[in-house]
Amino acid sequence: MTLLQRLFHIPLFVPVQTLALASGPASLILARVGRTLDRMTPQLSAPSTPKERQAKGHIALVGAGPGAADLLTLRAVKRLQQADVIFYDRLVDPEVLELARPGTEMVFVGKHVGAHSWPQEKINRVIVTEALKGRRVVRLKSGDPGIFGRASEEMEAADEAGIPVELVPGITAASAAGAALGRSLTSRGVANALVLTTGTGCASDPFPDCTRLSGPGTTTAFYMSVRQARRLADQLMQKGLPADSPVDIAVEVSKPGERHFAATVGSLADVIAACHITGCAILLVTWPEGGVPTVQSQTAAGQTAEGPKAVTAV
Amino acid sequence: MTLLQRLFHIPLFVPVQTLALASGPASLILARVGRTLDRMTPQLSAPSTPKERQAKGHIALVGAGPGAADLLTLRAVKRLQQADVIFYDRLVDPEVLELARPGTEMVFVGKHVGAHSWPQEKINRVIVTEALKGRRVVRLKSGDPGIFGRASEEMEAADEAGIPVELVPGITAASAAGAALGRSLTSRGVANALVLTTGTGCASDPFPDCTRLSGPGTTTAFYMSVRQARRLADQLMQKGLPADSPVDIAVEVSKPGERHFAATVGSLADVIAACHITGCAILLVTWPEGGVPTVQSQTAAGQTAEGPKAVTAV
Repeated sequence: MTLLQRLFHIPLFVPVQTLALASGPASLILARVGRTLDRMTPQLSAPSTPKERQAKGHIALVGAGPGAADLLTLRAVKRLQQADVIFYDRLVDPEVLELARPGTEMVFVGKHVGAHSWPQEKINRVIVTEALKGRRVVRLKSGDPGIFGRASEEMEAADEAGIPVELVPGITAASAAGAALGRSLTSRGVANALVLTTGTGCASDPFPDCTRLSGPGTTTAFYMSVRQARRLADQLMQKGLPADSPVDIAVEVSKPGERHFAATVGSLADVIAACHITGCAILLVTWPEGGVPTVQSQTAAGQTAEGPKAVTAV
Repeated sequence: MTLLQRLFHIPLFVPVQTLALASGPASLILARVGRTLDRMTPQLSAPSTPKERQAKGHIALVGAGPGAADLLTLRAVKRLQQADVIFYDRLVDPEVLELARPGTEMVFVGKHVGAHSWPQEKINRVIVTEALKGRRVVRLKSGDPGIFGRASEEMEAADEAGIPVELVPGITAASAAGAALGRSLTSRGVANALVLTTGTGCASDPFPDCTRLSGPGTTTAFYMSVRQARRLADQLMQKGLPADSPVDIAVEVSKPGERHFAATVGSLADVIAACHITGCAILLVTWPEGGVPTVQSQTAAGQTAEGPKAVTAV
């Protein structure tokens, strides 16, 4: 079997003999990769047949990572290939959906920024309904499903219906932003803790105190916080972070519209307004041990950011 | 071209005509996957030739994820395939190394738990030395290189030598542990912030106050904290977390030796001792909003943990 057959468990319409006759290092590589993946994923099988569908359903909450198709894990790609139906929302890049089998049913459960998405309860209901039909359901979520992905609610709905549910982890936005900016999120003697938080709350807490954990020795990654930037910057300064402390803004990381901006805590809200940053962005603030920012990323304030798409903010 | 050729940019010794003649859904799938990955990774090229090596070197700090080969990203696999030399340490599973090309030079820079690793300065020096020879260097790191991966030091060494350096993000241990345990790390109305911290400090701060950010509305993921468990549990209880609050212990997530244990804050140190947990583990503590733990994972204290390898702790 080839790597593809092993990895995706899909019959490939090339005679196995042809591949077996292949020689040279490439065929060795493929055999080794295939064997490795085989051993690591013994539970996988081919896409379900109509007969199997009657017997069992399954829900996988799959992390799509930040956007780029090549930042999916191999396991996530396999789940997409095995799915009978995929529920996705606006944050999942169209490129990622192309990794599924053609003909896989795709259901869009959210609209674009600022418009309404499906209520969570409706999503819970439809994924369970599809699984109860015996189908393999993938709920594809931006980033990591366990981090600001509302996985709890979908897992509870599946559990109540007796549907097996699997979590497939993904690259969370903070990791992707740090990598794109060429900076580490933790650093010895500077930040020994990383806080992932959000400026966007829920109905019972619409304006969460998302800066409450920021302080000396931390990096804080603010998710979904662009609209709350002025409030959170004011809070950080009230807590003692100097106004000239750098803030990295990573917009649409790994997507075609990726942009990086360098601001300071004091200029954050103005930079966001001036640069028309409205959508999917991560704000990274390192508050160094000792309290005075000394380490900056490669997109430090006032310098030209690196990378072809990078922009230096005002 | 096949997916494999596009994905790994390695000549495959099968006539292209043979693949082009293939019909049916599988070949369509492969063409679509290949096109997608091609578009997303235009910067990739084949492994370097001796001539190219004279012209340029490159260092990629690549996240290997928690252990299982299928939890690498597609981009990480590509970097392994392109590497001339790979530096890895004890936390990287041998299965992952099999994803590299045969004949790739592999350098082990760390020893097993409790024994000495290479000093960081030596690692910095050798990766730069190899890149200055014009080689493609992969520094393969467990988890995400930007989270407790000492990426800052290796990036600084590369920058000082003028070597281009790339960060490839990986699945960090907290994400992997949450997924393995079937629990979300954040949850509306329970925990709106996630703290990643470590009980193992550096020379200047050997016993960091790793519980300082834990409090109502947080989940804390403690990395490298097994040996500090009694101290951190005492600190959590002193801060007001009830002794019967659940703690999930995820050991060697996604590796062959994976085990899950359920403890409470009060029993944590005793469970770790009784179950002989000494190595690579993540401790997850959710301190719910309102202060009283009400939500537990599927491996809640006192219940049999799920999964074939799971064990219920004392």
